[in-house]
Amino acid sequence: MQITPPYLMFLGDVPDQLAAKTAHGIVDWRPEWCLGQMRLPGCGADLHLADMSIADAVAGGARTLVVGVANAGGVLPAHWSQSIVAALAAGMDVASGLHMRLGDNPAIAEAARQHGRSLFDVRHSSQRFDTGKGTKRPGLRLLTVGTDCSAGKKYTALALEREMRARGFDADFRATGQTGVFISGRGVAIDAVVADFISGAVEWIAPAADPGHWDLVEGQGSLFHPSFAGVTMGLLHGAQPDAFVVCHEPTRTTMRGVRHPLPSITDVIDLTIRCGRLTNPAITCTGISINTQALGEAEARAYLDRLAGEHGLPATDPVRFGVGSLVDRLAALYPQSTRKPKG
Amino acid sequence: MQITPPYLMFLGDVPDQLAAKTAHGIVDWRPEWCLGQMRLPGCGADLHLADMSIADAVAGGARTLVVGVANAGGVLPAHWSQSIVAALAAGMDVASGLHMRLGDNPAIAEAARQHGRSLFDVRHSSQRFDTGKGTKRPGLRLLTVGTDCSAGKKYTALALEREMRARGFDADFRATGQTGVFISGRGVAIDAVVADFISGAVEWIAPAADPGHWDLVEGQGSLFHPSFAGVTMGLLHGAQPDAFVVCHEPTRTTMRGVRHPLPSITDVIDLTIRCGRLTNPAITCTGISINTQALGEAEARAYLDRLAGEHGLPATDPVRFGVGSLVDRLAALYPQSTRKPKG
Repeated sequence: MQITPPYLMFLGDVPDQLAAKTAHGIVDWRPEWCLGQMRLPGCGADLHLADMSIADAVAGGARTLVVGVANAGGVLPAHWSQSIVAALAAGMDVASGLHMRLGDNPAIAEAARQHGRSLFDVRHSSQRFDTGKGTKRPGLRLLTVGTDCSAGKKYTALALEREMRARGFDADFRATGQTGVFISGRGVAIDAVVADFISGAVEWIAPAADPGHWDLVEGQGSLFHPSFAGVTMGLLHGAQPDAFVVCHEPTRTTMRGVRHPLPSITDVIDLTIRCGRLTNPAITCTGISINTQALGEAEARAYLDRLAGEHGLPATDPVRFGVGSLVDRLAALYPQSTRKPKG
Repeated sequence: MQITPPYLMFLGDVPDQLAAKTAHGIVDWRPEWCLGQMRLPGCGADLHLADMSIADAVAGGARTLVVGVANAGGVLPAHWSQSIVAALAAGMDVASGLHMRLGDNPAIAEAARQHGRSLFDVRHSSQRFDTGKGTKRPGLRLLTVGTDCSAGKKYTALALEREMRARGFDADFRATGQTGVFISGRGVAIDAVVADFISGAVEWIAPAADPGHWDLVEGQGSLFHPSFAGVTMGLLHGAQPDAFVVCHEPTRTTMRGVRHPLPSITDVIDLTIRCGRLTNPAITCTGISINTQALGEAEARAYLDRLAGEHGLPATDPVRFGVGSLVDRLAALYPQSTRKPKG
């Protein structure tokens, strides 16, 4: 799955910004890929991009119409499918994060066929993977793991990519969820893969690379989440990380969607190392990433200092204080990776 | 997925017994469900059942044609699909363990529709599951786990069902693999489920039950297998076992299909307890099941005695010595479960 930018961001007529969460994530991290937005009458979302028609966007070089919104009811509205068909007819591919498959709509399937364009359903994987082999691949890998779902794993990996690239590291974010796939133009929503192929799909997502190259692999779920730990386990084995960063949201009292208490950061470090050793005996925790939004600035600093002391690791809030301290640690532990290969 | 016995076992014209491995498993464990076999000219497999035509089988009460063979090439041969269509026309459902879906064959799909019959593709899951909740359900559950794939997990669970039922326990085998689904007429090939729903599917497979009822859940893979540990983890959390039995094949030096060494039985016990506590804090190991086929009788006994002493657990080879010692331990630990509810 390789989605080609630049993107025209299709918002349809969703009622509010929350329904366009995926689209906002794409614009936040890849503003240079987002040529404009297309909104239908009544749309309550706004990406603060130029409003464009399909003709404008194609003239400006747009290659893919991105449906980065959640629609109610799980059925593609007829007026949305008309826009999608028009984009295909105008020569764009279409990539969607909707629950339903684009190709299940006969008009869209026919238009894609007729105009020779590609349809990408980011939530679905039609790709065939091998089962994971667990063989150590060259290249360095960092995985973001969490005490829970939605604890900042994607954000942390993307912030690391930005900071590491700025410092001359050869580093690529590797997407394992739908928003991440749009942001990197590549990847697989790992929770949509058939269970037998979780680790194999991750081996495909983060393939063999130069010895000094970093893959920054977006984590999913938690080894301690009763709904999703299988996904997290397969992701850990497939990513075979050298380094991992633990992400945590300190005000949460139960795991998302269930009644289980959150594990401690120490629990997560210990179990990640214990299980991760299977495919990378050198696995080590290199930092802690905290969402301190609910804390005051002084309180946040004190909390991070305490965690750093307790664990002997850099601890930061990537939004508030950046990820410089996490990258300092990587530079110190993996000096071979700090210079980009020539050429 | 509920497959209705009795079965007519369709062997097509596969060249040898190995290609009919699934069919043999069904006959071994459910001879009373297997009315007869249907073979085409040149068939090299034989279940030692009465050879029957479709008309004979229907007259004898057969409800489902079971395609329990592996065919070469992944394409359904035309002479097989003719038999399948004929079975549907005669009023039977058809259940298949083939890689391809029955319904992808237009003639079969049309015949099923026309005659109002069901098609079961045991390797594929079209069923929608909820994500796992991890909430403790009433009823007792035992999971078979392994140091590796193909270490006797299905056999051990089925042998426990047979022995426990004979002793008056209220116990049901719960299938998580294709052969097991045919044997129990119900269940899900868990490795074919979308990754997000592994534990949720197992919660469906082994639902809430009477406090003294045992679900004997067929394990898959190993927490130490780099290809499949995600499946094993989700299965462990979904099954929330009270008891587990570790299955092991002592002559194996590397995990199946990869180059990783086998974990020790102690490793498996420790990690299973550590991870399994998430959904059942009372999880405990209640026995060890060994495939001693490669050992002489005296050697096997000595080996099992040594393991039993080392781990303080009953250790047996279910094929050679039965599972009586494993059931004795369950009767001692869970006395509330030894009598069937009245009625």
